[in-house]
Amino acid sequence: MQAEPILQQLMQALRCLPGVGKKSAQRMAFHLLERDRQGAFQLAQSLAEAVDKVGNCTICQTLTSTGICSLCSDERREQQILCVVETPVDVMAIEGATSYKGLYFVLNGRLSPLDGLGPAEIGLDKLAERIKLGEIKEIVLATNPTIEGEATAHYISEMAKKHHVKATRIAHGVPFGGELEYIDSGTLSHAFSGRSEV
Amino acid sequence: MQAEPILQQLMQALRCLPGVGKKSAQRMAFHLLERDRQGAFQLAQSLAEAVDKVGNCTICQTLTSTGICSLCSDERREQQILCVVETPVDVMAIEGATSYKGLYFVLNGRLSPLDGLGPAEIGLDKLAERIKLGEIKEIVLATNPTIEGEATAHYISEMAKKHHVKATRIAHGVPFGGELEYIDSGTLSHAFSGRSEV
Repeated sequence: MQAEPILQQLMQALRCLPGVGKKSAQRMAFHLLERDRQGAFQLAQSLAEAVDKVGNCTICQTLTSTGICSLCSDERREQQILCVVETPVDVMAIEGATSYKGLYFVLNGRLSPLDGLGPAEIGLDKLAERIKLGEIKEIVLATNPTIEGEATAHYISEMAKKHHVKATRIAHGVPFGGELEYIDSGTLSHAFSGRSEV
Repeated sequence: MQAEPILQQLMQALRCLPGVGKKSAQRMAFHLLERDRQGAFQLAQSLAEAVDKVGNCTICQTLTSTGICSLCSDERREQQILCVVETPVDVMAIEGATSYKGLYFVLNGRLSPLDGLGPAEIGLDKLAERIKLGEIKEIVLATNPTIEGEATAHYISEMAKKHHVKATRIAHGVPFGGELEYIDSGTLSHAFSGRSEV
């Protein structure tokens, strides 16, 4: 038996959420309609409002509803250090965990030529313009330690070198609280080659 | 760092979905806004439409947008056999898997006095009225094999007995393709006590 068109449409729409397949979508649709109509209504409103109002910060490209995001417009932040990350979530993670007080630049992902993501697509031309302004003295490369992330970091470090700006990369190695025995070989070899004097 | 109010509100709203916690909600919100705005817009629309239009079938209580659902209004279905289930999803499961051709009655859950769910709350008064009409000859009890589900089935079977209607319970035992070694003890003991002659 097929569900009603409206229900089918809702289940299909729910599948746009990451990690939600056919079964989960069905469970969600019935849960909302049977048990939480208020929540469903609220969700519909929040989604519509977010889609309508949230855009990219014109300076750092993170998601914001105010044209220029709160971090870029905060004059107390150090204006000479710029941390480059892959997504807006990374900004939140860094803000939540570290005492970093500089500015951010959010790439629209990472270099991935096979997926058609070249320098222009992820906003590196915009980053180049920003570096050219001359205010930035250090670029902290905080892209993910994947092949594409490393390639992106390398590309930006070359860009920085050309404009005589210092580029630094966040440390990669054995995670805090991790046990050597269970660490994957890539991380362990990275940790060895990146060892520093104590 | 706190996200913007609109983003925070969206993340909070997403948590009304079953199985979605703080991290998943964050991932979903950013995924939608960064990668799938069309999907988010569609989801908002579908949710609003479903909340607005989908209600309960006035006869069987399943979810429908047409007052009386397609199954209840289908005159080709056997009108004398009524299958009682806990939720609308169960109707879809039975329709998809079996060749049952009778009608359904969807309880609004199951008897659970501790949660304040008595006979009236789950619609058993409505079921009683339907039985009294005298058209139903057999009630198939397809509530879940949990303690509450069994209690609900027992309650309905007593109700059926009072009106001289036959009540049957779907079979419970070792699932098809299951291996005895890995079956839980409750199911196994149920399968033994419910054995039938071959």
